[in-house]
Amino acid sequence: ANKKLLVLPGDGIGPEVMREVLRVIDWLDRRRKVTFDLEEGLVGGAAIDAEGAPISDATLAKARAADAVLFGSVGGPKWDGLPFEKRPELGILRLRKELGLFANLRPAIVLDALADASSLKKELVRGLDIMIVRESTGGIYFGEPRGIETMPDGRRRGVDTEVYTEDEIARVARIAFELARKRGNKLCSVDKANVMQSGRLWRAVVGEIGRSEFPEVELTHMYADNCAMQLASRPKQFDVIVASNLFGDLLSDLAAALTGSLGMLPSATLGAPDSAGRRHALYEPVHGSAPDIAGKGIANPCAQILSFAMLLRWSFGLEEEARLVERAVERVLAGGLRTADIMQPGMARVGTTVMGEAVVRELEKL
Amino acid sequence: ANKKLLVLPGDGIGPEVMREVLRVIDWLDRRRKVTFDLEEGLVGGAAIDAEGAPISDATLAKARAADAVLFGSVGGPKWDGLPFEKRPELGILRLRKELGLFANLRPAIVLDALADASSLKKELVRGLDIMIVRESTGGIYFGEPRGIETMPDGRRRGVDTEVYTEDEIARVARIAFELARKRGNKLCSVDKANVMQSGRLWRAVVGEIGRSEFPEVELTHMYADNCAMQLASRPKQFDVIVASNLFGDLLSDLAAALTGSLGMLPSATLGAPDSAGRRHALYEPVHGSAPDIAGKGIANPCAQILSFAMLLRWSFGLEEEARLVERAVERVLAGGLRTADIMQPGMARVGTTVMGEAVVRELEKL
Ligand SMILES: CC(C)[C@H](C(=O)O)[C@@H](O)C(=O)O
Ligand SMILES: CC(C)[C@H](C(=O)O)[C@@H](O)C(=O)O
Repeated sequence: ANKKLLVLPGDGIGPEVMREVLRVIDWLDRRRKVTFDLEEGLVGGAAIDAEGAPISDATLAKARAADAVLFGSVGGPKWDGLPFEKRPELGILRLRKELGLFANLRPAIVLDALADASSLKKELVRGLDIMIVRESTGGIYFGEPRGIETMPDGRRRGVDTEVYTEDEIARVARIAFELARKRGNKLCSVDKANVMQSGRLWRAVVGEIGRSEFPEVELTHMYADNCAMQLASRPKQFDVIVASNLFGDLLSDLAAALTGSLGMLPSATLGAPDSAGRRHALYEPVHGSAPDIAGKGIANPCAQILSFAMLLRWSFGLEEEARLVERAVERVLAGGLRTADIMQPGMARVGTTVMGEAVVRELEKL
Repeated sequence: ANKKLLVLPGDGIGPEVMREVLRVIDWLDRRRKVTFDLEEGLVGGAAIDAEGAPISDATLAKARAADAVLFGSVGGPKWDGLPFEKRPELGILRLRKELGLFANLRPAIVLDALADASSLKKELVRGLDIMIVRESTGGIYFGEPRGIETMPDGRRRGVDTEVYTEDEIARVARIAFELARKRGNKLCSVDKANVMQSGRLWRAVVGEIGRSEFPEVELTHMYADNCAMQLASRPKQFDVIVASNLFGDLLSDLAAALTGSLGMLPSATLGAPDSAGRRHALYEPVHGSAPDIAGKGIANPCAQILSFAMLLRWSFGLEEEARLVERAVERVLAGGLRTADIMQPGMARVGTTVMGEAVVRELEKL
């Protein structure tokens, strides 16, 4: 059977960067006999406008039936005024929750060609290669009770609940330990165990899994505030980091920003494997919908293309093809092409399409 | 009546850096006829060891009776194994909560003499001067219900509750707006209103206060993840930032780390003024107890001394004296003295005492 992909370009620059991935998919079909069945769907503001909700049940059903979802980005000023339950972000939140995509893998990598782009001093980031594993279906994002209530005296009160069961912590910890084992064998688990009860449980469970299942992985625990500090000052001390949904959200964006090349960073969000070993998975760039540059043809398609490389690796075990795509992107950069977001003196500034075409050209050569 | 100060040196380097502040207090008494009544108390691990709890009721009573509390830092490996309710950190958490110290003011400043110390490129931080206002008696730090429970199936579940009433948000917002008005007239309010209900309320209340009471202050709203990114990449865009207890914890530590000179950063935590205009307040350095260097005489006393300068300003309106202390510290740095944490090539490395003495020598000259 062919590999079934659901493509959800979303809003803003989503559709234009997604178009460049299609070139890579086409190349895989022609040259490597790796063939995908593509379906397309709407998500975010685009879905709100056309279907009345940030993601329709039909699209969710397609996502469930697919082997993998390739996601663009959602949101934009047009939908900013909408009430909570109708916002574009709910498209991605529902996908994560309903497909059980609990492990969000966020690499923060500094490619040699782009080491100058970081706001950090070059020697602090050259060769940086961190993997942040963020829990993504639990914690304060979904915990009940939640809401804004009016108290007897007429005043309002906003409530959210951070909840983690030990199973939720254990399964994401296992993913992080496994990744660490394949990489530098170092895992840093992040929490606020000095203040939060869920953090205490987090620390205890990660510690137990480490001792009993991954004794060979060097495990450390760090408070979230300290981790933010350490990332900002000595990021290369980290290999794999695992954190709750909320801490992972902040820390992975922080790590991404430190690379200076947000337009280059992919992510994967994985579910649990079923008895046949199949798992739901969604792949999306770290950058958002960037409404300010949408439609101008200048967005960087690399993060979307590299998200597709992660898809090849994680959903289909196509490690070789994943590497080819990653190498092609690196070579394009080494050759001097740059989109506006990563432009440097002496390089050639190009638009979205030229960048995408260049990646395919490098693939042809590999 | 004399000014009543409660001094709580705490653990680790706390006592040794506090000793240097006493020199400054002595100088104020001798040269400026500004006289303090000093009491001392135990907090953190020191209090656990001597009094059986991270802060005793007697010490809390003294804190309540004082005009201001000068706090060192708490914690260390010796007490790491203790159960939640007995940890050193509870000393500071109880002080904040029971004295109603809801507004934690955390300046992130890059002094010219130390611009090279930042992990960020110099041009991105030179002249940086941000004030982060962190709510410090509410949110997930104290919300109920909280705890670790065992579910019917025997598995554990950790719960914390983020709660904010509109009054809690309004009072910290007002402090932030007032600060912004005295500074660059720009306030950035941080939340996750796209995910959290308390964040939606936060955004609404800060917006209302801005429109009705501070229309002249330019107010923006930013998601916490984006704020972490923006701080790490273009910190100078900010003037005053206001955030919840948890986001403020991470973001203020991040901003502190970006300055590269944590050993220089003070903080103030203020309560509400009573009918006579008196407010409880606590002043503490941003750095922790640094157990690894405790007792070696090499800790940087500047953050503790600058915390005392904030105390002069905020608790006693002694703006002139506060400035003198701040200028003395700047001059010592300009003169080339450095403790180990901020050491740079070509400078003179000194210990805690020499640094403290040098500050007093500069005060004598001012
Ligand atoms: C879109 C938003 C709900 C989301 C989040 O907070 O999880 C985003 O910041 C992300 O990290 O994917
Ligand atoms: C000591 C600890 C409880 C504390 C906190 O998280 O508030 C610390 O990180 C701080 O910022 O003062």
